[in-house]
Amino acid sequence: MISTTAARLADALGLPLVGPDRVITAVAPLDSAGPEALAYAEGVVSGEAGCVIAKEAVEGRAVIIAPDPKLAFIQALNRLFPEERAAGVHPSAVVEGQLGQGVTVGANAVIGAGAVLGDRVWIGEGVIVGPGCKVGDDTRLFPKVVLYPGVVIGKRCRVHAGAVLGADGFSYHPTAQGPVKVPQVGGLVVEDEVEIGANTCIDRAFLTETRIGRGAKLDNLVQIGHNVRVGPACVIAAQVGVAGSTTFGVGVLVGGQAGFTEHLSVGDGARVAAGSGVIRDVPARETWLGVPAMPARQARRILAALKDLPDLAIERARRLRAAAGSND
Amino acid sequence: MISTTAARLADALGLPLVGPDRVITAVAPLDSAGPEALAYAEGVVSGEAGCVIAKEAVEGRAVIIAPDPKLAFIQALNRLFPEERAAGVHPSAVVEGQLGQGVTVGANAVIGAGAVLGDRVWIGEGVIVGPGCKVGDDTRLFPKVVLYPGVVIGKRCRVHAGAVLGADGFSYHPTAQGPVKVPQVGGLVVEDEVEIGANTCIDRAFLTETRIGRGAKLDNLVQIGHNVRVGPACVIAAQVGVAGSTTFGVGVLVGGQAGFTEHLSVGDGARVAAGSGVIRDVPARETWLGVPAMPARQARRILAALKDLPDLAIERARRLRAAAGSND
Amino acid sequence: MISTTAARLADALGLPLVGPDRVITAVAPLDSAGPEALAYAEGVVSGEAGCVIAKEAVEGRAVIIAPDPKLAFIQALNRLFPEERAAGVHPSAVVEGQLGQGVTVGANAVIGAGAVLGDRVWIGEGVIVGPGCKVGDDTRLFPKVVLYPGVVIGKRCRVHAGAVLGADGFSYHPTAQGPVKVPQVGGLVVEDEVEIGANTCIDRAFLTETRIGRGAKLDNLVQIGHNVRVGPACVIAAQVGVAGSTTFGVGVLVGGQAGFTEHLSVGDGARVAAGSGVIRDVPARETWLGVPAMPARQARRILAALKDLPDLAIERARRLRAAAGSND
Repeated sequence: MISTTAARLADALGLPLVGPDRVITAVAPLDSAGPEALAYAEGVVSGEAGCVIAKEAVEGRAVIIAPDPKLAFIQALNRLFPEERAAGVHPSAVVEGQLGQGVTVGANAVIGAGAVLGDRVWIGEGVIVGPGCKVGDDTRLFPKVVLYPGVVIGKRCRVHAGAVLGADGFSYHPTAQGPVKVPQVGGLVVEDEVEIGANTCIDRAFLTETRIGRGAKLDNLVQIGHNVRVGPACVIAAQVGVAGSTTFGVGVLVGGQAGFTEHLSVGDGARVAAGSGVIRDVPARETWLGVPAMPARQARRILAALKDLPDLAIERARRLRAAAGSND
Repeated sequence: MISTTAARLADALGLPLVGPDRVITAVAPLDSAGPEALAYAEGVVSGEAGCVIAKEAVEGRAVIIAPDPKLAFIQALNRLFPEERAAGVHPSAVVEGQLGQGVTVGANAVIGAGAVLGDRVWIGEGVIVGPGCKVGDDTRLFPKVVLYPGVVIGKRCRVHAGAVLGADGFSYHPTAQGPVKVPQVGGLVVEDEVEIGANTCIDRAFLTETRIGRGAKLDNLVQIGHNVRVGPACVIAAQVGVAGSTTFGVGVLVGGQAGFTEHLSVGDGARVAAGSGVIRDVPARETWLGVPAMPARQARRILAALKDLPDLAIERARRLRAAAGSND
Repeated sequence: MISTTAARLADALGLPLVGPDRVITAVAPLDSAGPEALAYAEGVVSGEAGCVIAKEAVEGRAVIIAPDPKLAFIQALNRLFPEERAAGVHPSAVVEGQLGQGVTVGANAVIGAGAVLGDRVWIGEGVIVGPGCKVGDDTRLFPKVVLYPGVVIGKRCRVHAGAVLGADGFSYHPTAQGPVKVPQVGGLVVEDEVEIGANTCIDRAFLTETRIGRGAKLDNLVQIGHNVRVGPACVIAAQVGVAGSTTFGVGVLVGGQAGFTEHLSVGDGARVAAGSGVIRDVPARETWLGVPAMPARQARRILAALKDLPDLAIERARRLRAAAGSND
């Protein structure tokens, strides 16, 4: 972390500082920040933080005033924790492709023949960029990422360690002699400003392309099947699985471990709760949950009623016994 | 892709071409194929495809006639998209084991002491083959696959990037001093023609062996516990988890994200729906679903009735209030 | 495996041997062990095993008497299958950090600048230890493990292949221009004697630290979000997901594929069944299950009653029809 002062930071952010100047040598959550730490407050400023980013001034405190304190805190973090940018190709790397200006290639990374890396691309240790891949300017591939041949990644993306992009889609043709593999000869396109989590897998398409839209964010251990289209600005939490050919619109939010069967359509702005099992199309802007998933209002009514189910079953058994008795 | 013509392709496939010959420079789905593209049709031939593989001739169109159009299309893809076969050991690879004829070893791969690779094995970049492993003829290990020591892989298998085969089974003995690790000294055997997805994990056995049967297909991010036996021709979709010592018969089909507790038996030809949680044995040829999983017919009846549960609960509350009132 | 005899093994374990001495050249489960194999019996000794570890002597059999036969068997396995310890740095490894005594660094591993490895640390092939990481004495990192910068791992840990420790937590600030990444500048601390499964992901904290307590055991493909605290001696099965800032007490047991939403508290000794979806705090020592998870007793009553739900719905429909009829 780069040390600074409240005044210098406020200046860099283009925001007013109210109160005394302070040295900033740390960042911390509001409730545990010390006198040299920067914190932010969504609401009331409390605790001991030396400098707080908040919406309103506080008597005797160093407060950087911001309409969206968390956004200003994010901008502060980006200044105080600049990412490593030691350009250059490590001598142990194997580079057969073409590199833009200011590219970093880490130890033991492999850049295949015909691959093209844009300017300032950062390739971590042990990354494998397959033949013919394209990686846009300022994108970072963390250690051990694997791009299968021909995968296209946009600009300013972050792909975390161990992610596998462009492996074969999972498709077998049933025959009397058992399942026969369907070759997967399509592509994978990841648009600009996408973040992909550690050990996440996104398959290449059968014939056409799998596509992850601009600004989409995928957490760790997510599975995206072949031919899937994830729209721009979707946010998909960890361990979600999306089966082949399913399409997400713009800004879909999906909670962790949710699953989607194949050939579904999920509309713009839809929200799907963690752990849901989606087997039907989800209309735009609706919130769905449950296994199988349904509109949240309906699912919540059922979940609330489940607590009465044991008594309903007991009362039914009693009625049946009574009816049987009256028949004796 | 290799360019061809409809006549040459039909000849190579041993199938009749009806209609005019055409140049083929692309492959595509039927509904988006252009005049130089090959497509296939399960039913009625539509669209603009230059050449279609279908069951019946169509007036004025280049049609390759096949009893199973998709199978013929698969065979065409295998001819038009041959997989890379640049034999040779990259100078950066570390090879201490023994290689068959025509083996490819990619950059920065490591073949441990005593490992034995069959003919035409293809080892991707950064693969780690542990000491004493065996890999059969024509098998492909994609980049970053890890084989722990002593793992045995059959012929004509495909193991996708990041898969980890033969790590320790998860087993701890509870003691007053906390959980004590149970060493996992058994093996892992993968039979011929198995495909294993990206970042999938298959654990070695405790004392005996974990075994994946001939022709089985596992998708990405699957977890197979120690001592599990997956029968021949099983097809297991992404993110499925199978706990220790569970046994699958022949040709079991499992949908994505399903889970199986330990020591279960799943019979030949059983089908388990996506997202199911299986905690009991599944008889052969039955279809199960649900959490917990049960025969599909029973599960569907329950799911259908759930929509009435809120009203059942409301009517019960009304009855209870009425009864309480009549007691006043 | 090291060959031995029943007498020598009993001596090494400090346990009495009753019956004849035997050569031991294998280990096996009790029901399949042959005359030169060691097995253990929790109860009655059966089968052909040459030597059995059991609680009581058996006429004419070589039996090593132990109060906890499985624990003694584990200790025997640790002696008979010592783990490889070929100290030394492979010439292909890239080491910029500092190594303790007797450290092993496998082929193509990378130890970043400022990283500090304790004595007898074993680094597998292709491992990436980021700049500034610390790894305690006797810890083993299996092939392809990735430690992001600054991650701290304790002593006597085992981290399996492909695990990614310290990647960014998943956090975006919603704005009118779409989700904005929240930089993750906190750390990750893994205490002593922790085992982490293959391809498991544990994220670094936002500002503070993510922490895995002493002796905790995590299976394969587990996801641990940022700021999570897993207490000592927790045991977490495969494919579990724990969202950000959730806290586990001491000795929590979690079955496979269970999920936890964020900011939950799970008390000491709690048990959560496989496949559960936990959305509320779990009190200490309770067993919970279900989606959403609830106390097991309550969940089991509901599950048992579900089988009556279809009939309840049918009877309700009949009542409604009858009532409608009587209104005609």
